[in-house]
Amino acid sequence: MKLNEKEVRKMKNIGIPKGMRDFSPSVMARRNYIFNTIRKSFELHGFEQIETPAMENRETLTGKYGEEGDRLIFNVMQRGDKLIDEILWLKELDTDTDKLTKENFNPAVKSSIIENFSDGALRYDLTVPFARYVVQHQNEITFPFRRFQIQPVWRADRPQKGRYREFYQCDADIIGTDSLLNEVELIKIFDEVLSELGMQDFTIKLNNRKVLSGIAEVIGRPEKIVDITVAIDKLEKIGQAKVEEELSEKGLTEIEINKIKPLFQLKGDSKLVISILKEYLEGSKVGQEGLVEVEEILQTLQAIPLQKAKLEIDVTLARGLDYYTGAIFEVVSNEVKMGSICGGGRYADLTGIFGLKDMSGVGISFGADRIYDVMEELGLFPESLSQSTQLFFVNFGAKEQAYVLPLLQQAREAGISAELYPEAAKMKKQMKYANQKNIPYVVMVGESEMQSGELTFKKMQSGEQEKLSFAEILKQLKG
Amino acid sequence: MKLNEKEVRKMKNIGIPKGMRDFSPSVMARRNYIFNTIRKSFELHGFEQIETPAMENRETLTGKYGEEGDRLIFNVMQRGDKLIDEILWLKELDTDTDKLTKENFNPAVKSSIIENFSDGALRYDLTVPFARYVVQHQNEITFPFRRFQIQPVWRADRPQKGRYREFYQCDADIIGTDSLLNEVELIKIFDEVLSELGMQDFTIKLNNRKVLSGIAEVIGRPEKIVDITVAIDKLEKIGQAKVEEELSEKGLTEIEINKIKPLFQLKGDSKLVISILKEYLEGSKVGQEGLVEVEEILQTLQAIPLQKAKLEIDVTLARGLDYYTGAIFEVVSNEVKMGSICGGGRYADLTGIFGLKDMSGVGISFGADRIYDVMEELGLFPESLSQSTQLFFVNFGAKEQAYVLPLLQQAREAGISAELYPEAAKMKKQMKYANQKNIPYVVMVGESEMQSGELTFKKMQSGEQEKLSFAEILKQLKG
Repeated sequence: MKLNEKEVRKMKNIGIPKGMRDFSPSVMARRNYIFNTIRKSFELHGFEQIETPAMENRETLTGKYGEEGDRLIFNVMQRGDKLIDEILWLKELDTDTDKLTKENFNPAVKSSIIENFSDGALRYDLTVPFARYVVQHQNEITFPFRRFQIQPVWRADRPQKGRYREFYQCDADIIGTDSLLNEVELIKIFDEVLSELGMQDFTIKLNNRKVLSGIAEVIGRPEKIVDITVAIDKLEKIGQAKVEEELSEKGLTEIEINKIKPLFQLKGDSKLVISILKEYLEGSKVGQEGLVEVEEILQTLQAIPLQKAKLEIDVTLARGLDYYTGAIFEVVSNEVKMGSICGGGRYADLTGIFGLKDMSGVGISFGADRIYDVMEELGLFPESLSQSTQLFFVNFGAKEQAYVLPLLQQAREAGISAELYPEAAKMKKQMKYANQKNIPYVVMVGESEMQSGELTFKKMQSGEQEKLSFAEILKQLKG
Repeated sequence: MKLNEKEVRKMKNIGIPKGMRDFSPSVMARRNYIFNTIRKSFELHGFEQIETPAMENRETLTGKYGEEGDRLIFNVMQRGDKLIDEILWLKELDTDTDKLTKENFNPAVKSSIIENFSDGALRYDLTVPFARYVVQHQNEITFPFRRFQIQPVWRADRPQKGRYREFYQCDADIIGTDSLLNEVELIKIFDEVLSELGMQDFTIKLNNRKVLSGIAEVIGRPEKIVDITVAIDKLEKIGQAKVEEELSEKGLTEIEINKIKPLFQLKGDSKLVISILKEYLEGSKVGQEGLVEVEEILQTLQAIPLQKAKLEIDVTLARGLDYYTGAIFEVVSNEVKMGSICGGGRYADLTGIFGLKDMSGVGISFGADRIYDVMEELGLFPESLSQSTQLFFVNFGAKEQAYVLPLLQQAREAGISAELYPEAAKMKKQMKYANQKNIPYVVMVGESEMQSGELTFKKMQSGEQEKLSFAEILKQLKG
């Protein structure tokens, strides 16, 4: 193939926006394997799927993710008309400030422009659209509502290794009940899915926002709960010394910091951790409440033991999320260092932001991209995922093609994915195609095969070749 | 629940952008039924799935869908910074034109603004991103490449009944071969999928761009092919008189229009249609070529008959798409008036727009939304789709819950979707929940059941109730 200069230039410009990805067939097969395993577990637990649109009204999303989050929301604009309106309006507005520069640009005007000209915004996560969905459709929903949702989200984050601007979230939430049985079920789902995916060693970390509140109370600085939890959440990342430094910067005294220190070593056997915490939190009612919740979850789980997961109480776990009010979950692989691969927690009032109060919910989210990377590193994807087509018919020409077409049809009707090469190309080319597509079985039908009805059947992996009737071939493939 | 005024106002504002949709669990179950049926057929035919990002570079999309299409592309903008730059630049640019209004706004400046400030654009269809994908990844792809793709697309169209701003497309294309066997396979897929979905009466319409070129040649106005095809494509919608009017407006003489007229009645038996066309297109080489292609497709299909589909040659079929060069497909339901529910065709040079020449491809697209509407109207969705959870355990309290939890676990391990109500709520409330969620089987375990091991098992549809061991219950559910 010869390309002229203009064409080469065209091809060089081919690409996609940064932080975005194409998924090839082999990657898709592996991603679908993860999604299907998650979906199956959600469904076995009675969760029902919903989908919400990619685009939400801007006001639905803004103000829900903090200042930094808001800045990462992608805005969507239909045509240029609204934009032009804004510019004209701005020209009138600014007749007296001639020396308008980027630096002295009025931030209120700036955000008003963005707000007014965009027709919507791409969803930033699945939780806020879910809250919006529940409020909007409250009269159609049977509560407690168990919903799951597997859809992409978009964030205008700085792209880097493992961080993308478009990625799937796989969420399950139960809303409209504060029973701790839900926490138990979600922990079971973590365990079920990751065990099913072949992970042998992973830890579900469990904490409770009330325990964190209790700690802040015991230290004598209940108002500093956010600063304290944000700091101790970083323990594993930055180490104890830096956490203490940060606590000091946030205004905690040495005495107060010393009171926190024992918590840094609080790991290991859950019963022991709880008995230590019971003493530590003796003076805090809310702290004790949190502990009772943790205990009840552990207690209930005894009747239905986890498969591969270790369960660990981790009081340094905060996940930096303001809205959790009860249980906080995080899952890490112990085989591959990767950060958390799942997370979640309870929020007593998720739909309150949209005016529907007293709706307690608890939810979890699977990080499909990180799970993918862990599985890739551990070699956990089944070999069979690399095969799509099972049976390949070599094309020897018009007459043979006419003979083979009904067989091709039979194979498909038997549920066997099958292909006939579309042209009577050279044998070598056709076999190369079958090879590259990783097709395990090849059938060759030439003159003699048509006469005898005994077809040449080749197993690609072993190279083994035999003569079989097509009925026998089907039998082998289905067996 | 009492809401104050502010909260009520909040809830009133809850909504989603126009033309967008939420999908509830019951609708999702039906949509997934359609998607899974399509996916299964694609896979049986050896197609492999890819996904491309929601967002493409603007220049990838613009200029590919005609002027009207370009206007319907949604633009995406990350933050406001680029926008501010543009406004400042505009202020400098326009120092001499003080009376800038929307009307005298320079269109070039306008499009430059949109172009420069947007970070990307939402995909408008799956075909152009696929062409971009093929060019970008040509060295990793095994040709002929059979890919399928099921993803949403976005168009800033005026929303109306049955027309949405976000909708799924389900596409299968084969690229890198001009064998007509591919056309045959795609016709088979139309037939397989729609028959599998339960449709009893639908027609696959087949035409060929070369036949249309032949017609334009025969009339003596080859340069008018687009005007002619666009006009006759509307035959069913607007009737013969209006089509003739349009042809006249486009500059065809009465004599020329009279030459087209016989085609309007050209329906019915394929063999007859072909023999008439053979005579009609006698003077056109390209027209004859097109006919040969149509004949070969029909001929090949004789060895592998269609299930429920009728196949019909329709020379008025053009689908208004400039890029088809060979076969043109369209599928309509004969039971529900709905317009086309599927479409497709061959394009000799799809990737040429991105600089990779001589890549012939042929593809089809299922219109999931219209198929949904047809199936809904015909009542084709299986009753079982309305059930997600199969087995429901009433919750009678802590002791009973502890007894039931391992059974719940067993049911799920047996692949039965099961739930335990999360609280020991009133019986009536729990049964109402099971009812509303359409759960077919309920298990009740109270004091006496725990003692005897014989559980109360209720079939919700018949109201029938019996005492069974849990092993017997599982057996019934799996049978």
